[in-house]
Amino acid sequence: MTTIDAPLAGYTAKHLRLEVEGTVATLTLDRPEKKNPLTFDSYAEAAAIFRAAARDEQVRAFVVTGAGGNFCSGGDVHEIIGPLLGRDTKGLMAFTAMTGELVKAMRACPQPIVAAVDGVAAGAGAILAMASDLRLGTARARVAFLFNRVGLAGCDMGACAILPRIVGQGRASELLYTGRALDAEEGLAWGFFNRLAAPEALAGEAAALARGIAEGPAFAHAMTKRMLAMEWAMSVEQAIEAEAVAQALCMTTQDFRRAYEAFAAKRQPEFRGD
Amino acid sequence: MTTIDAPLAGYTAKHLRLEVEGTVATLTLDRPEKKNPLTFDSYAEAAAIFRAAARDEQVRAFVVTGAGGNFCSGGDVHEIIGPLLGRDTKGLMAFTAMTGELVKAMRACPQPIVAAVDGVAAGAGAILAMASDLRLGTARARVAFLFNRVGLAGCDMGACAILPRIVGQGRASELLYTGRALDAEEGLAWGFFNRLAAPEALAGEAAALARGIAEGPAFAHAMTKRMLAMEWAMSVEQAIEAEAVAQALCMTTQDFRRAYEAFAAKRQPEFRGD
Amino acid sequence: MTTIDAPLAGYTAKHLRLEVEGTVATLTLDRPEKKNPLTFDSYAEAAAIFRAAARDEQVRAFVVTGAGGNFCSGGDVHEIIGPLLGRDTKGLMAFTAMTGELVKAMRACPQPIVAAVDGVAAGAGAILAMASDLRLGTARARVAFLFNRVGLAGCDMGACAILPRIVGQGRASELLYTGRALDAEEGLAWGFFNRLAAPEALAGEAAALARGIAEGPAFAHAMTKRMLAMEWAMSVEQAIEAEAVAQALCMTTQDFRRAYEAFAAKRQPEFRGD
Repeated sequence: MTTIDAPLAGYTAKHLRLEVEGTVATLTLDRPEKKNPLTFDSYAEAAAIFRAAARDEQVRAFVVTGAGGNFCSGGDVHEIIGPLLGRDTKGLMAFTAMTGELVKAMRACPQPIVAAVDGVAAGAGAILAMASDLRLGTARARVAFLFNRVGLAGCDMGACAILPRIVGQGRASELLYTGRALDAEEGLAWGFFNRLAAPEALAGEAAALARGIAEGPAFAHAMTKRMLAMEWAMSVEQAIEAEAVAQALCMTTQDFRRAYEAFAAKRQPEFRGD
Repeated sequence: MTTIDAPLAGYTAKHLRLEVEGTVATLTLDRPEKKNPLTFDSYAEAAAIFRAAARDEQVRAFVVTGAGGNFCSGGDVHEIIGPLLGRDTKGLMAFTAMTGELVKAMRACPQPIVAAVDGVAAGAGAILAMASDLRLGTARARVAFLFNRVGLAGCDMGACAILPRIVGQGRASELLYTGRALDAEEGLAWGFFNRLAAPEALAGEAAALARGIAEGPAFAHAMTKRMLAMEWAMSVEQAIEAEAVAQALCMTTQDFRRAYEAFAAKRQPEFRGD
Repeated sequence: MTTIDAPLAGYTAKHLRLEVEGTVATLTLDRPEKKNPLTFDSYAEAAAIFRAAARDEQVRAFVVTGAGGNFCSGGDVHEIIGPLLGRDTKGLMAFTAMTGELVKAMRACPQPIVAAVDGVAAGAGAILAMASDLRLGTARARVAFLFNRVGLAGCDMGACAILPRIVGQGRASELLYTGRALDAEEGLAWGFFNRLAAPEALAGEAAALARGIAEGPAFAHAMTKRMLAMEWAMSVEQAIEAEAVAQALCMTTQDFRRAYEAFAAKRQPEFRGD
């Protein structure tokens, strides 16, 4: 497994573009001539970046996007699908474990992730958008979970668990059985996209959303993210118990004290994440 | 823990307003000059009321609402947040356990709960609406899970488990990370609100909805409520097994017999809850 | 328990209509003069058909529909509800276990199921639609989970687990507590229906959707269906692990190889399910 040292601000990505501006890290899939496909290398590097983020004290939110008007065309047919056909059982399992590791790393990193989706988001590209915390789209965004088109199952990298929780079981079933593209209007109406932006405004809106979150209480946001995932398989009683403990912990942070003092003094709180 | 004797019709609330009319109990947060904030006392009393409801033979449905054009502004900054800053670990945990107890009591009471939401529903106020079974709103309703604005996490009183199941994971994430207000139109489109009413009609419509439910089979409704919560962390096979047992039990009630006899005689069934 | 031998193409249904055309099996509730109610016999036969489907090598998708402009009026009042009142505890449990077995069989059969819903879908009829994988409706479709109208609970045949995952917890609660009919427009907006069709076009569109799925990779589709159900009560990490294994298995199929070879040769892949 590739590992990367934190802080991310000091890391130069090889198979992707990573930029850290202040507290926001932007990860860009950057092979626009091929609509930004993923390769074995970029999968591994992206996962390593999100794992390193868990140890990064500076970055408080991520933007994930693609270069040149598309998000990501998925696993490259020649660079990924072809080679997979020559792999043995162990080799196939190593591949799906690696792709799954990317989604796990995205869910495990404490920073909320904003996907900025223009144009094509197909296969693993659709998964990258789905595995983010928030999603902005454009009118020309087309999100296709097209695994069945290449003879595979919709259960890729967590899709059968995550997608129904975003758009509902019936709509997720349709997308996964037919492989058809979800367009922008549907994506917005179904809650896949949180908002749409004009293509030329997308990067700016995603950055602003990420900055807004990054200015919030980072410790508390990380707890929100952790619990949003942890509570999927809990009873409602267990969830309430878990949140009582988590929130009591957040009440011991300086950010909580700062917010109260700012409120009492009628000024905006300034959160520092401690 | 505060405890209250059933029946609720004989109880005079101290920190809230409780009215029982026939089979419907209406709980009103009633400090309109401050937009009905919660206090340590009203949290505890509300929880005790819903716990007592489990032993109440008269009340078959609840309405929860606020006085004076707002639902609830959440935990009072001076009466709750300030004092919390002076508490030790044990004291903080006691607070979050108490607020969690309110949601647990709402989910555990056998009566369906209709929230009637006008104006502000913020923080714990948004939670009260979320923790109800059904929600009516008005065009000026604004529901804000604004915990992050005070330096806290969105995982408050079950929100990270309950809210995604109502509005989906992506929309819940947005509300919990940004703290922004959900307005009425969005709330309706997202399934947070079941319906909107004019402000002057809200109380009447909520009461009518609650009465309609109260006229139904109370034992069966309680079973519906129990199973809607119980089945969150079950497999589909387990859920079907659990429902087979629960429904067989409901088939032994007199209400089931009455419905059949009324149908055969071409009249409306009259349910009595036995 | 009734058992039926595969292949289904050689089976003549007694209490329903079953037609197998190529790789699509259509199951029609066919007592149009009574809006196609279910009886003890048709419940058992339908369950047996879906169980047999697990051993059928020809059928790759199902359509479930009703004859004569209605889907299904649910359990017949005189043929089911009346007799149930004379049953003892064991007999009631046998009934709910049998109805539950139908939904279990629908979820367990490897073929995706498309419900084509025109007119009335009430009680167990609403359940049949809900328990399908995809749902097409018409403008005159009316889906009513009206169990409470006959004195029973909404927790029937998995409804409290399945319905909230399709339409969300708040909307499911409303349908189950009030028993009111969901109309076509709401059903579409809420994600209960995947699409609406004109009544005269419904059968054709459902068949085309089923055929489109049947032309896909059957082994992979079966895996998608299995995982869409299996992952309800898993953590996101567990779901990703489970999918890594499942997808690695799908990568050993000939259908995956065929898709790659077809792509390389710039032709449409032809899937055979192996």
